[in-house]
Parts: sequence; structure tokens; C-alpha cells
Amino acid sequence: MTFPVVGMVGGGQLARMTHEAGIPLGIRFKLLSDTPQDSAAQVVSDVVIGDYRDLDTLREFARGCDVITFDHEHVPTEHLRALEADGIPVRPGPDALVHAQDKGVMRARLDAIGVPCPRHRIVTDPADVAAFAAEGDGFPVVLKTVRGGYDGKGVWVVDSAEEAADPFRAGVPVLAEEKVDYVRELAANVVRSPHGQAVAYPVVESQQVGGVCDTVIAPAPGLDEALALRAEEMALNIAKELGVVGHLAVELFQTRDGRILVNELAMRPHNSGHWSMDGAITSQFANHVRAVLDLPLGDPRPRAPWTVMVNVLGGDYPDMYSAYLHCMARDPQLKIHMYGKDVKPGRKVGHVNTYGDDLDDVLERARHAAGYLRGTITE
Amino acid sequence: MTFPVVGMVGGGQLARMTHEAGIPLGIRFKLLSDTPQDSAAQVVSDVVIGDYRDLDTLREFARGCDVITFDHEHVPTEHLRALEADGIPVRPGPDALVHAQDKGVMRARLDAIGVPCPRHRIVTDPADVAAFAAEGDGFPVVLKTVRGGYDGKGVWVVDSAEEAADPFRAGVPVLAEEKVDYVRELAANVVRSPHGQAVAYPVVESQQVGGVCDTVIAPAPGLDEALALRAEEMALNIAKELGVVGHLAVELFQTRDGRILVNELAMRPHNSGHWSMDGAITSQFANHVRAVLDLPLGDPRPRAPWTVMVNVLGGDYPDMYSAYLHCMARDPQLKIHMYGKDVKPGRKVGHVNTYGDDLDDVLERARHAAGYLRGTITE
Repeated sequence: MTFPVVGMVGGGQLARMTHEAGIPLGIRFKLLSDTPQDSAAQVVSDVVIGDYRDLDTLREFARGCDVITFDHEHVPTEHLRALEADGIPVRPGPDALVHAQDKGVMRARLDAIGVPCPRHRIVTDPADVAAFAAEGDGFPVVLKTVRGGYDGKGVWVVDSAEEAADPFRAGVPVLAEEKVDYVRELAANVVRSPHGQAVAYPVVESQQVGGVCDTVIAPAPGLDEALALRAEEMALNIAKELGVVGHLAVELFQTRDGRILVNELAMRPHNSGHWSMDGAITSQFANHVRAVLDLPLGDPRPRAPWTVMVNVLGGDYPDMYSAYLHCMARDPQLKIHMYGKDVKPGRKVGHVNTYGDDLDDVLERARHAAGYLRGTITE
Repeated sequence: MTFPVVGMVGGGQLARMTHEAGIPLGIRFKLLSDTPQDSAAQVVSDVVIGDYRDLDTLREFARGCDVITFDHEHVPTEHLRALEADGIPVRPGPDALVHAQDKGVMRARLDAIGVPCPRHRIVTDPADVAAFAAEGDGFPVVLKTVRGGYDGKGVWVVDSAEEAADPFRAGVPVLAEEKVDYVRELAANVVRSPHGQAVAYPVVESQQVGGVCDTVIAPAPGLDEALALRAEEMALNIAKELGVVGHLAVELFQTRDGRILVNELAMRPHNSGHWSMDGAITSQFANHVRAVLDLPLGDPRPRAPWTVMVNVLGGDYPDMYSAYLHCMARDPQLKIHMYGKDVKPGRKVGHVNTYGDDLDDVLERARHAAGYLRGTITE
């Protein structure tokens, strides 16, 4: 056996950070990227520019790779099956990945294995949405296209059947879900290898702003130990039942009445796990690489009592580099992770991590740095 | 200001790990490498293949770089001056770097600023070596070519004038030094920025085997606090007096009578600082990048009571990847850093880091992993 080649489909920041985590392992990293300007393409030596939706491109790319893994969930399932038929290990495989691609399939499967979810049903038109509402506590109702949504896109919260016209215009199935009365969002991140070893990161609190992840606190403050354990076990069970290989993020609602319900699944390194780059013994990216190569997994435990991640979104100022001077001078322990992306308002262009013993201090430092980089804090 | 381009001359593992540390900062990294197979060239996107001894190649490479820095000390001083005359910041600059290139210049300068060194003198022939020995405690005497030595190469320990013929054959000046009666070797690592900010890493113990660094323990066990402080101050003072920008490693002898003497200087990230990748809040590589860009420096303090680095040298078995299974399964906290280099007996091909509260345990884990990867431990 020699050092293997990991083929990564997709050139976003998750691929960039996976490459960073793979360098110390001495593995070869090969990237399929849309453009040479993509986040990961800027820092990887072996880059193929091409369209992941084209099977011939995928097949050509996969030649010489020992395993294929992903920066996103958008590769057509049938293409993944074709690669597998060619003898290329695809991790996670199509049978698992479909649950992160199709929210309808995901809900049906979670129901079947007894994982608690928000009340939900595939709906066919606005009148059906009204019927769904009437079956439960009425409006508001959450509507989601079953494929293609992310960061709040493809999601609508409607207060009446009249408001429910939009989601049906795309011509894809629509999933209706109850609007959960949650106190906060949590995420349970686990990593699983082909031979079934799995590790669980501490359950984190994930704070969203406008449908986009803003702040992650690891571990989730004040979370009841039994509930944390239940969330970890739930995520490990989902990974096992769905045959996930690699990183699985289970986004959860913590309800007012003390339950946890599954919101979304992601089968790749996830925004709610970015804290692990500086806050855990082994980062989610390092463990994802180890998992897809069927290497023993690394210790997921935290290195500090508290780690906070805050996303850096694009603001009105295109130049974030000059903000480094202030941010680094103010906080010599600050960890900046920028993705090499052009600044556009609201776009995730990086994140910062802070850690320490005092949660208030750790939170303040991360929020200040992210705000200063974005330009919303100027002192 | 936009994100800058750091030009790195030399494609070895130090460049590879500097690239790894630069990715999160979003900077652009450009590499001048001898071959596409070099350690860093395997993982960097923007690589120029060329000879650093050729000024035209250097000039062409430097175009579009915001700063030039180095993986090694071998770029001719006059070429560095030419780049500076072209208006390219060279960090460390030629006036500093010459002290890491020429041991004669280094000793003269350290004498001038009052830094304690082993007794030394430039010698002209074997008879002069005998005279040097007679001036002190006699043989053995250490002879070093003033330029080009590393990892024990270019160094002779001679017991008589008759044995002293070899060093003079190369036709370069030879430095004679007393053979210091030391109890152990230490290293003081500091980083300094152009505007004079500097940070000091904890002083480490460096254990050599056959002239090659084998084990580094951070911090140096049982080191008297006053002596540690003196070593840090000495390194900071050398960095300031010599105008170093970037990382400076000061290799030290701790003598039986409680003194510290400077052995060697290196002006780049250094083997004695590899522990910082997993053991310090900010690694030597991240701080080197920040320094050459004149960004505020990161906190150099340790994250764990003890961190141990053990080099992985090439052994008789060319396949180190298969050893990952055992090493990772045995120690889920182990940090492996491989350089992508072909295994040759005695060649540095990687290192491992371990950290924790119990030094004996941390040492055992690192030594076991390095030995297993090399093939000298098989269970």
C-alpha cells in the first residue's frame, strides 16, 4: 500500500479545509472544481476544472483516485452509482447520500427507524398545505423543496394557504413541516468509517441569523447531560442505519418541552463543526479524511472548556485583510479561517474560532473579530 | 490592501508546513521549488520549478510576490540584495540571513553583542587546529565548514591534528570550536516582525541522535526558570540585534556548570519548533507567515503541560502508510505530520506530536509511533 489519492468533488471552503487537514497525513488530494478561482482550487496542486453533473467528467476525474468524497451533496445519485460500478469507492455512498440530498427520503427513513422529527408530509398544492396545517396546530407551516435548498434557500414559512404558492412553482416535490416551538438549535456531529468505527463530537449550540449559521458554541451551554447523550446516540444511530461514511451533521431543534427533533442532515464536514479545527483534539476535517480512507478515527474531545465559532459574512467593505491588523493585535489567541472568496454581502467568506475557560469572554472575542472583519464593528 | 502573495523559496517540508499554516489566513502562497516532486510542491497550487541559485529565475519568481521568504538558508546573499534593490521585501533580509549562512560571520557578530558561545576561531590548516586546541583544554576539537552544513554534515569532531585534514579539502574557511561539555541541548525559538514585535516560545530540550534531531520536549523538563528566561531573552536579543524578521531558532548547549552557549542559528521555522503545530496556541509556521507579512504575532504559549515531537526517519520499509492503522488505533490523540517524501534510510520524512499532562506517557506515545512508522518497533 502506498499513500492514497483522495478525490474531492467540489471546490468550496469545505474542500479547502479538508485539503488543509489532509496535508499532515501525507495523502494526495485531487480536486474537481467548477473554476480555478474556487476556494479550494486556490490552494490545491492537483485540480481538474469540470462539471460534476457530467458523468464523463466525473469518471475521468475518478481515474487514479483511491476514494471519492464531497464538498457538497449535489452530485446526481445515478452518477455516484456509476462510479461505484466502475469500482471506485464513493464515501459517503449514494444510498447514504440520498438522505442528505432529498428531504422527503430523509424524513421517510428517519420515521422508519424511529428518530423524532417535526410533524411533516409531502404536500401537492396550497390547499394541501391548508389541510396539513389543519391536521396539526394550524399555521404557520414550514415548506421546503425536497432537493437543492441550503442556508435558508428553498425554505418558506407561510401563515396561510395563499402564501404557499411560491414553493410549488419550481415543479419539485414540497415537504410541509410543523413550525417547531424550539428554544434553540443544536447540532450533533459524528464521523463513521466503513468498518463501522464511529466517534461523536460534543453536541453544540448553533445560532442562526436569517436562516444562516452565525455562531456555534461547543459544547452547548447548559445542555442537560442526558439530553446531550441522547442527541449523540441519535446521530450515531442515524449514521449507522443510513450507512454513512465520513462526517454526518445532525441539525436538531431543542423544543420548549424538552425534546430533540431532527431538522436537517448533512453528510460532509459542516459549519457546526468548524469549531473543531481549533477546539477539538481531532478536527472534523481530519476525521472525515480518516473515515473515507478507513483509517482509525481521531479523538473528537474538546481541548478547551469552551470553543466558539462565528461566521464571517461579507459586508459592505471588500477588504478584510486590512482588518487583520486590529483583530490580531487585539486578540493574539484569535484563530482566523478565511476561504479566499470574494466578499459579497451576506456571503460566508470565513469564520473565526476562539477558545478558553470563560464563555462570555470567548463569545465576546469571536463576535468582535467577526464583526470587525465584516465591518459592522469599527473599534 | 488585498490579500498578499507570499513567495517561498525552497520546496521542502518547512515550505509545505508554512503553506498549511497560511491557508487559514487566506493569503496566496507561491513556491519556487527544484522539482514538482518536492515536499511542498505536492500540495501548493502556484509552483514555479527553477533554480534558486539563478538570479533571473529568482527575479521572475519574485514578480507579483508581496514578500519573499525561505525554506532554507542557501540563497546567495548577493541575489537577496538584488531582489531588495528591485523593491521586493526579503524576510529575513540578507543582512540578517548571512548570520545563518556563514558560521564565521555568526560567531563574530555574537561575540560583538556579548552572546556567550563556545570558544572558537577560524583555523587555516591542521597545525592551526593543534594550536587552537593548545590554547584551550586540548582535543577533541569541533571543526565546521562555515557554509553549507546541516544535520551533522560539514561537522567533524577530531582528536588530533592528523584527523583534521578533511575539513580543509573543500577550500572553504573552517571554524574550530571547543567541544562543549554539555548536559543537554536546548533551543530557544522566537519570532520577530519588521516593526519589532517579538514573541518567545517556551525553551525546549532537543535530543540529537547521530547529529540529527530526534526528540524535542516542550518545555525543557526541569529547566531552571531563571535559565529559561535568560535563554528567551538571549534569543530575543539576537533577533533584534541581527534584524531578523520571521522565525529564529537559537540552538543552545546547557553546560555542566550551568551556563548556556549558542550552538547554531536558523532563520526559518525549525525542527525544534515542530511541536508548536499541535502544542502551542500559535504554531511557528503561522507566526512566521504573520511576521513576514508584518501582521501582529500570535500567542506562542503552550496548550498542554507537555508536548513531545519525535522525528520520523526513513528505515528499511518504504511503506509508512500501512503503519497508520496501528498507530492511529493505538493512540487516537496522536498527531502525524508526513512530508510526502520518499523513504530513504535516515532521511527525515515526517514527525509525530503528542501532548498531555504526564511527560512519561507523552514521550512513550511519540517514540512508539515514530518507531512504528520507521519500522524499528513492530508491535
